[in-house]
Amino acid sequence: MAGEPTPASRGEGLKVPGVGERLVVIGGDAGGMVAASQARRLRPDLDIVALEMGEITSYSACGIPYLVGREVGSVEELVAREPREYRERLRIDVRLRHEAMTIDLDRREVEVRDHAHHRTIRLGFDHLMLGLGARPRRPRLPGIDHPMVHGVQNLDDAQALIADMERREVAAVVVIGGGYIGMEMAEACRRLGLTTTLLDQAPEVMGTLDADMGSLVNQALRNAGIEVRTSTQVEGIGDGLVHTTEGDIAADLVILGLGVMPNVAIAADAGIELGAQGAIAVDRRQQTSAAGVWAAGDCAQSYHLVSQRDVYVALGTVANKQAFVAGTNIAGSYATFPGVVGTAISRICGTEVARTGLTEIEAAQAGFGFHAVTVTGPTRASYYPGAESVVVKMVAERGGGRVLGAQIVGGQGAGKRIDTVATALHAGMTVRELTQLDLAYAPSLSPLWDPVQMAARKAMASLDEDG
Amino acid sequence: MAGEPTPASRGEGLKVPGVGERLVVIGGDAGGMVAASQARRLRPDLDIVALEMGEITSYSACGIPYLVGREVGSVEELVAREPREYRERLRIDVRLRHEAMTIDLDRREVEVRDHAHHRTIRLGFDHLMLGLGARPRRPRLPGIDHPMVHGVQNLDDAQALIADMERREVAAVVVIGGGYIGMEMAEACRRLGLTTTLLDQAPEVMGTLDADMGSLVNQALRNAGIEVRTSTQVEGIGDGLVHTTEGDIAADLVILGLGVMPNVAIAADAGIELGAQGAIAVDRRQQTSAAGVWAAGDCAQSYHLVSQRDVYVALGTVANKQAFVAGTNIAGSYATFPGVVGTAISRICGTEVARTGLTEIEAAQAGFGFHAVTVTGPTRASYYPGAESVVVKMVAERGGGRVLGAQIVGGQGAGKRIDTVATALHAGMTVRELTQLDLAYAPSLSPLWDPVQMAARKAMASLDEDG
Repeated sequence: MAGEPTPASRGEGLKVPGVGERLVVIGGDAGGMVAASQARRLRPDLDIVALEMGEITSYSACGIPYLVGREVGSVEELVAREPREYRERLRIDVRLRHEAMTIDLDRREVEVRDHAHHRTIRLGFDHLMLGLGARPRRPRLPGIDHPMVHGVQNLDDAQALIADMERREVAAVVVIGGGYIGMEMAEACRRLGLTTTLLDQAPEVMGTLDADMGSLVNQALRNAGIEVRTSTQVEGIGDGLVHTTEGDIAADLVILGLGVMPNVAIAADAGIELGAQGAIAVDRRQQTSAAGVWAAGDCAQSYHLVSQRDVYVALGTVANKQAFVAGTNIAGSYATFPGVVGTAISRICGTEVARTGLTEIEAAQAGFGFHAVTVTGPTRASYYPGAESVVVKMVAERGGGRVLGAQIVGGQGAGKRIDTVATALHAGMTVRELTQLDLAYAPSLSPLWDPVQMAARKAMASLDEDG
Repeated sequence: MAGEPTPASRGEGLKVPGVGERLVVIGGDAGGMVAASQARRLRPDLDIVALEMGEITSYSACGIPYLVGREVGSVEELVAREPREYRERLRIDVRLRHEAMTIDLDRREVEVRDHAHHRTIRLGFDHLMLGLGARPRRPRLPGIDHPMVHGVQNLDDAQALIADMERREVAAVVVIGGGYIGMEMAEACRRLGLTTTLLDQAPEVMGTLDADMGSLVNQALRNAGIEVRTSTQVEGIGDGLVHTTEGDIAADLVILGLGVMPNVAIAADAGIELGAQGAIAVDRRQQTSAAGVWAAGDCAQSYHLVSQRDVYVALGTVANKQAFVAGTNIAGSYATFPGVVGTAISRICGTEVARTGLTEIEAAQAGFGFHAVTVTGPTRASYYPGAESVVVKMVAERGGGRVLGAQIVGGQGAGKRIDTVATALHAGMTVRELTQLDLAYAPSLSPLWDPVQMAARKAMASLDEDG
């Protein structure tokens, strides 16, 4: 267990006091590496060591469903930046197959298991960046460890899944979980021609939308030939069967798409404070409760600008922004992360699905008084070829009429319209202000009143009636 | 010339004092009819008479290029609402082929030529709404009145053009003017298989963009097989020829796409004040210099929220918003039109083109110190099938870093991203704030950093270097 201290200038072993400053980064994905890169840009002198448990840095986990569905040809395409690039271009000492085991805040050291060389070392740090990521939810069910059961959290999972599908004859897949990843995986399996069943324990898929909007997504899945079973709880997995509260379903492959939990054990063990949903608590500069220890990405909490509560959001966009802020602060400069508004999007079986702010359910839970309205409009001028339908639901606060959130389900070009609402949420706009925005119109790309503004107009009328 | 006064309750003739209130609307398109409709909603008792010179109300002039290019099948599809609907559903007395000749502000009367019945009447009003629209720029050139020369301002023009193309063999078209309408018409002609030449007197097409962005649109036109001649001035039109400063061009059809001027003669003659570019001056409630006389749409000026100057913008979106405000105020309620940020969009030969705020040139003219940056990114994750290229140019104010404007040219899904910037402009955001917006990301719909945020990041870096 004894470390092998070597000179700090090589970035290995214990810190020698006075010999430069060292940043140790735990985690080779967005949370860690964006912070490391930004710190490097601002501090050319810093000694930066990045520890990655696996073999790959900075990849797009969001691309996994498209890899499985063969829309993306190779794992390499999902890798944004190779370890070599970090080493050569940014002088970041990336160490693969290095697993951080414990953090000693008093001695300011990390104990690291070097799996490549079967040894344990101790690394001193001045600054510690935690980009620990998330781990998939894995229910404790009989048969959950059956080899036909696959998670899809990281590229190793994806490669194992693809290898399994190539190794044997797979005909029927059950996907457990009707959130973004579950639906994207179900679509990927259907693309491959497999009999695909999606299970969700909730009464409607897409629990991040209100049920009326989720049902539109459900319909899109069914139209694509996916069997959707809601209000269905999995009780166990047997050989060739998934046992549920609603009966058995034949399956020779099971995919877990149940979302993720923050990966915080090493931080919690070190006494670092946890916050929303067990994620690492951070201040607006991304500093944890321990001085000089920073966190970003899927292991860290965020602040929700609309509900004004700490929340847990595991998304690459948020990880990148938080990590950029952390890296700036680590370098001794100043930056803050104002927070999130809960934006998310996907395209599922040709239908674009997006949300931002609070749903009707979330607004009620957060104690807001509000009006919720729904409109249906075209994606283009209704007379223009290729116009498709888009449904926008908008939630606006009673009284002042502040926009609280929106959900969009529709055809091509529908989804990214959510960005208009997301931007309005950041600015704290009212639905009246939303109706007056100078948005872009051309028959080939939008109706005269953008569907988002149609919803805002209806919300305004609804609020006016309210008095 | 004497009027035929009839009871005000029928909405005809001179106002009888004390017998209800009358709104007279001049113009049957968006500016007039949206105001009339909104006034009706709020004031069921109001006597509303709407005068339309032609035969059609409320149509989409923006759809004309697609009608000519046969992407839209019939004129009827471009009509949003028939006169009958206004009459029956909103009790608005729409009078077709009625041309307002003069406005008498002292007597509060409009003199109207009823072309249907070859008579002139006088209509009294309490409120007067001017939705006079615009008229096409028509240069005084030798041969400009040749029958092969067509404007494309209204549906009558469009029908005349289509009839001309059907009546005789047309092989070569020259489109004069490289703005939105000129380029859309050139594309329509090319779609029909015609030899198409686009002329612009400026060094680059799309004068509403900076030249570096305009050149990308120019390339898209050329790729579609359209001959583009810039820095070329038309000197005259002869039989089968367009004479230019750069030589003659064979043409059996000439289309004028030179934009429009506000149609204000009747208002100016009445002594109503004109403002930016000769458009009718209005206050923030859309009232003209004459009490109780209101204006909206292509005849009226707008206030530009970024340059803080009065401007002239002839767009259906602006007309609708202004008219809604005017109608609300006419009804005795209260509304203001905050202004525009100069947003515009089109899809030209498969390339999406959008702008908002100030271009580099406009920012300089308005006296701003600024940085302008340009980035190229993908419309989707670069590994996702169908990702296309998008170029974003962003202009940010020196010092504080306020966003001043953006221009986008790119593939499918590129254009409407301008709405994010338009919304940010309304909110007065900085490029730093733009980088922190919680925008929607999924590999199938966007790269992790939206191209708009990529541009904002580059602008921020550029400003930081500036110190």
